[in-house]
Amino acid sequence: MTIGIGLLGLGTVGAGVAAILSSPEGRHPLVGQLALRRVAVRDLSRPRPVDLAPEVLTTNPEAVVDDPAVDIVVEVMGGLEPARSLILRAIAAGKSVVTANKAVIARYGEEIAAAAAARGVYVLIEAAVGGGIPIIEPLKQSLGGNRLQRVSGIINGTTNYILSRMAEEGAAYDAVLADAQRLGYAEADPAADVQGGDAADKIAILTGLAYGGSVPRASIPTEGIDRLDSRDVAYAAQLGFVVKLLAVAQHLGTADDGTELLDVRVHPTLLPRQHPLAGVHGVNNAILVEGDPVGQVMFYGPGAGAGPTASAVVADILNIAGIRQVGGAPGQLDPLLAAGSWRLCRLVDGSRTRHRNYVRLQTRDQAGVIGRIGTCFGDAGVSLQSIVQFEGQNGAAEIVAITHEVLEQHFRTALDAIEALAEVEAVAACLRTL
Amino acid sequence: MTIGIGLLGLGTVGAGVAAILSSPEGRHPLVGQLALRRVAVRDLSRPRPVDLAPEVLTTNPEAVVDDPAVDIVVEVMGGLEPARSLILRAIAAGKSVVTANKAVIARYGEEIAAAAAARGVYVLIEAAVGGGIPIIEPLKQSLGGNRLQRVSGIINGTTNYILSRMAEEGAAYDAVLADAQRLGYAEADPAADVQGGDAADKIAILTGLAYGGSVPRASIPTEGIDRLDSRDVAYAAQLGFVVKLLAVAQHLGTADDGTELLDVRVHPTLLPRQHPLAGVHGVNNAILVEGDPVGQVMFYGPGAGAGPTASAVVADILNIAGIRQVGGAPGQLDPLLAAGSWRLCRLVDGSRTRHRNYVRLQTRDQAGVIGRIGTCFGDAGVSLQSIVQFEGQNGAAEIVAITHEVLEQHFRTALDAIEALAEVEAVAACLRTL
Repeated sequence: MTIGIGLLGLGTVGAGVAAILSSPEGRHPLVGQLALRRVAVRDLSRPRPVDLAPEVLTTNPEAVVDDPAVDIVVEVMGGLEPARSLILRAIAAGKSVVTANKAVIARYGEEIAAAAAARGVYVLIEAAVGGGIPIIEPLKQSLGGNRLQRVSGIINGTTNYILSRMAEEGAAYDAVLADAQRLGYAEADPAADVQGGDAADKIAILTGLAYGGSVPRASIPTEGIDRLDSRDVAYAAQLGFVVKLLAVAQHLGTADDGTELLDVRVHPTLLPRQHPLAGVHGVNNAILVEGDPVGQVMFYGPGAGAGPTASAVVADILNIAGIRQVGGAPGQLDPLLAAGSWRLCRLVDGSRTRHRNYVRLQTRDQAGVIGRIGTCFGDAGVSLQSIVQFEGQNGAAEIVAITHEVLEQHFRTALDAIEALAEVEAVAACLRTL
Repeated sequence: MTIGIGLLGLGTVGAGVAAILSSPEGRHPLVGQLALRRVAVRDLSRPRPVDLAPEVLTTNPEAVVDDPAVDIVVEVMGGLEPARSLILRAIAAGKSVVTANKAVIARYGEEIAAAAAARGVYVLIEAAVGGGIPIIEPLKQSLGGNRLQRVSGIINGTTNYILSRMAEEGAAYDAVLADAQRLGYAEADPAADVQGGDAADKIAILTGLAYGGSVPRASIPTEGIDRLDSRDVAYAAQLGFVVKLLAVAQHLGTADDGTELLDVRVHPTLLPRQHPLAGVHGVNNAILVEGDPVGQVMFYGPGAGAGPTASAVVADILNIAGIRQVGGAPGQLDPLLAAGSWRLCRLVDGSRTRHRNYVRLQTRDQAGVIGRIGTCFGDAGVSLQSIVQFEGQNGAAEIVAITHEVLEQHFRTALDAIEALAEVEAVAACLRTL
């Protein structure tokens, strides 16, 4: 039984998918049953890294979706439109979809999932998070027996590359970013990566799968690494921590009305050096899933790149192809693979969440300043793990405090009081700590 | 649609499975459709950690398998017999099976798989390797687009606990083993763990899935940690390595007759400190999968324990339950989940494999001995990465050499020549190195 594949986009990922489909030897035998029927490209005359018959190529993506020889539509063109419309068009035509498009899924996931459920087709997104790392399928197919408590991850390779080099070399953010751009690890416009938006897209997707209900992508508090000072990376290291851009989705409880209460966020985070995520270097990604009764499981690997992403896209195609062999009435889906939502979730008010915090203060170098700062924390009910004075510039001092896990509201009250102290010149940095 | 579950065994894992099935709230909604119908126990009167209606319990495991209300048979009793016969009986009755029994699958996997394929049922084994870590399902469902080059892992928690403590404390093997037995991390009879047999069972299973064909379990060269000297752990640390009991299944190529050539083995191994598996501590497990085009992906988590193992068992039950909802003709299987074998594989002659090696020699402390040892290596075509002299006991010297990757045959030739040197008292240790 041959299954026809239509490809929307033949960039690096699309070409990677085409390369796998055209060389099935040594892969799962089901790959040999996939036939690449139609490929939409922007420019017919551009040279291609893969050999494709000219009649396979078209500049009209709708022709790919509509082609009756195409059973599964693979969207790897990126961008919000026309990707979203083409995905919906494929669903309406009763075709399952595989997409690597995290931006579309993070924003229009509910609309797309509802359309797919109504039409009885799959929309699979393994490649949208963590590149080649199997994380979407394990969340759907291997952890369903658990009550998940937390999903946290390093899910943006560009920022992890930058942070790894800042930590290793003591280099400044701007210098490493420029270098990363030269090396192709960062885009010319790096905003989506360094400001945390890409990681927020991905944690929005993981949240929906882990907790069975979505949260609005736009409401996820997101802080990037673009204002991170290399001094904080260095101080963190001296205190036994590594700074990573972490995306976190934490289950806090269930409201009286049955809604699941979540704390979902993206921000630079101090991790204790022995934490499983602290050893993730360079452009690698890793996702830590914590649940009952499984405990902590971690998924690690290359978070981007043509080959790894193509591996994830083909995994999705194979899942759809495998289930087709079972037969069954049209529109009857495997609920694990389809992964509909089954609960209502909402984000809790940030001031009611609890965190450990790292805070760096610029102060005048005067006797008693540590005591007065400590008193401000104590008066607000914020207990400290450590408070350390570092040598500042021009006779000033820098004081770094790390709190225990405290209510955000109390922490903010303490900071307000500290800022009002005469000896404190500035709250120079404020980072979350695991 | 309720699906009836029959449980063979109510030890720690069985009780963990029963606990999940009896408390579906907050788990995947499909868990709510699973009903525990029958449970086979050894002794009806023993107190249980889970509440089960008395009519559910029986001392007759065949009654569980034969019960028409049981759709899926879950074998968590362990041991070779009657587990194997009960699995085959369930298959013959047209029931899918979930088992955590690595010993049965490693030895009778082919017989069981053939019976399951003929009858059109699934035999799923996520819990047999890596405890709660999703590794079997990702290998089957998420990496099929790849040509796998190597699967290597720390897949025995007991030995990793012992090695972690030997490394941290400089403690001797016997002392840590005794402590591990007191703490319940090692069995009273630790042979299957410390001699490597348990890891060999598991790598046999992973080999079959990764390469689509099995190798005879009894032919896997297996070396445990029971003769490991703490001095080698200490020297390795000084040279930048961590010693782990590694199970490895490596693809070496394809023979002229189309058979895949594999090098599968279990032995203590020196890992460079920055290797992804080097940071796996205590009873945790991790499996590194290397393939084209995915690169390196790693799966990490608790390798044993009632909760994690029960999580994996329930994952398998859910996969079978999910696919049942698709409908389809009886006996039509999803080829990804069914994971039949599709290639012939065989182990290559060990002397033709290539490895890096660590070797510790006890020598007389004489001038020129390093030179003569180096010459023996060179004459055999074995190039060295380093050769270092350590302080020995009673005026003796210890010389540690680490080779580059060399043909095993050449390495053995060099060792024979070195043993014949007058200054060399003993080849005291020989370990593989990544």
